[in-house]
Amino acid sequence: MTDIRLTLDEVMDLALSVLRAAGADEENARPIARCMWRAERDGAKSHGLFRCAGYAGAIRSRKANGRARPAVAATEGSVIRMEGDRGFCPVAHESGLPALGALAKEQGVAALAIRRCLHFAALWPEVETLTEMGLAAMAFTSSPPYVHMAGGRRKVFGTNPMAFGWPRPGQAPMIFDQASSLTARGEVMIAARDGHLAPEGAGIGPDGRPTRDPEAILAGAQSPFGGYKGAALALMVDLLAGPLIGELTSLEIEAEDDGAGPALGGQLILAFAPERLGGPDAAAHGERLFRALLEEEGVRLPGMRRAATRPLTPEEGVTIPASLHRELVALC
Amino acid sequence: MTDIRLTLDEVMDLALSVLRAAGADEENARPIARCMWRAERDGAKSHGLFRCAGYAGAIRSRKANGRARPAVAATEGSVIRMEGDRGFCPVAHESGLPALGALAKEQGVAALAIRRCLHFAALWPEVETLTEMGLAAMAFTSSPPYVHMAGGRRKVFGTNPMAFGWPRPGQAPMIFDQASSLTARGEVMIAARDGHLAPEGAGIGPDGRPTRDPEAILAGAQSPFGGYKGAALALMVDLLAGPLIGELTSLEIEAEDDGAGPALGGQLILAFAPERLGGPDAAAHGERLFRALLEEEGVRLPGMRRAATRPLTPEEGVTIPASLHRELVALC
Repeated sequence: MTDIRLTLDEVMDLALSVLRAAGADEENARPIARCMWRAERDGAKSHGLFRCAGYAGAIRSRKANGRARPAVAATEGSVIRMEGDRGFCPVAHESGLPALGALAKEQGVAALAIRRCLHFAALWPEVETLTEMGLAAMAFTSSPPYVHMAGGRRKVFGTNPMAFGWPRPGQAPMIFDQASSLTARGEVMIAARDGHLAPEGAGIGPDGRPTRDPEAILAGAQSPFGGYKGAALALMVDLLAGPLIGELTSLEIEAEDDGAGPALGGQLILAFAPERLGGPDAAAHGERLFRALLEEEGVRLPGMRRAATRPLTPEEGVTIPASLHRELVALC
Repeated sequence: MTDIRLTLDEVMDLALSVLRAAGADEENARPIARCMWRAERDGAKSHGLFRCAGYAGAIRSRKANGRARPAVAATEGSVIRMEGDRGFCPVAHESGLPALGALAKEQGVAALAIRRCLHFAALWPEVETLTEMGLAAMAFTSSPPYVHMAGGRRKVFGTNPMAFGWPRPGQAPMIFDQASSLTARGEVMIAARDGHLAPEGAGIGPDGRPTRDPEAILAGAQSPFGGYKGAALALMVDLLAGPLIGELTSLEIEAEDDGAGPALGGQLILAFAPERLGGPDAAAHGERLFRALLEEEGVRLPGMRRAATRPLTPEEGVTIPASLHRELVALC
């Protein structure tokens, strides 16, 4: 498999061209392209240009609205409710995250509930945007069901990720962004495609028995990480990104969705102003904890791999498979 | 080991007598005793009368303030900041939780940050109290370090539990309350006492290697559940119950604490008003999800074991080991 090297500007241009050709207007194409650009910049390949054809296909088929105008439906107390207008989440984030950040600084803690949106990216970009405002943040979203409940064998939850971020003045924030399932969906699909075994504990077959055969897992269900504790987190995410904000659960997404590409659903984002809760020392206090943890050999903080890649790619550019490059150029 | 059967009233009386004898006044003894009473009522023995001597010892030694007057330091925006006055957390909850519930109903989402308190109970009671007001809730607290970081071998985090609850009108709420470690601290200690092996994955020895030998784990460190993902949750809890609210991290608790019994620290509790975020259908929507999940054989919701025990104990009473009963009677 040959690779093509692109500058970060070329990544942005390619993503924009594909999205525009699919029918996205500038107000939609730019935030979506920037989301893929951020992933490529940080070496998070699975959410980079690899996703571009998926975004474009959903816009072309009109499943996603490429001319969405997400809008704040109401700001009441410490809650902002947004309607996503069937657009991709990064479009709603353009105005939603600055509004959430401002409200959190005013109220101490605040929530942004986005309905009728399609989440096809990682969760760390929106969390990072909030940490850049000096806030701690959490984000939750659900998806069509692939994961079984503790004691069950039926697919009932999406891989239901949650992300948490903590601001680090002058350097990349601490952010984790992790699925409630042991592995990402894509990891099982790639194992099936390439004929590898899935990791131990990744899922069960249709008979309910644990297996490492990726085809059996795709026919059965993925397992939550950490057994019943991960399943409880998947249920929490389902409630927070679903009934709490008037949106679909994973099972309801399955019932309504056509199964092709990203699905319509909801997202909940929470933001916390550390100086309002813990006083002016909060950020420095977090740094003392990180410093103590990093004293130990072999330990790194969540998000440090992305942070280490970030300074390199503006110089070195990024590589994508030649086949992906051809596919995207053909979509322009 | 003979058991003694007690009515729930006798549980309450015994706990109250022990706490009073240790020096707690009524405003402290009642909420602490009720917390143990709730645990016994629900069959959650590890947080029932088993804890009573620990509460009493900390009060007698003046490590915990048995005459604490926790007070709201400030309510600003959607945040209530309380000073625990070195009392046990249930005492702060008496006025803190109704205030948090009222603020969440007004603001949609709200936070209660309790500083200078000792958490020696489970987290589900405070979450349940909020669900009884029709709210969803989360709670976080940290403790002296027993758990290693991903890639590390040093004890850096407490078992750092988090709890989440969702209200179910007319029935017991859905609540999970789970440590970031694979097992509870007590489970490893009991295995050491009784000469059993700890569960697979429970911890590492001082050499950093995984072991099931409980003595080696006590000398080494407990492991987070689910590998690096559980470690990330432990770090999140450390930040939320520590620097975010101006309180100690697990490592700082260790540096300041005498190591005997419960330690002084902080607690963060979040409450969400589903009808403010998702509209009037939120609770019924949650029920539809639970119904769909429970259709599958073998599946139960977190908290259902406690809910199933609850109707039985008012009739049948509870049993505690005769040795524990003797110990507590001697403390009266």
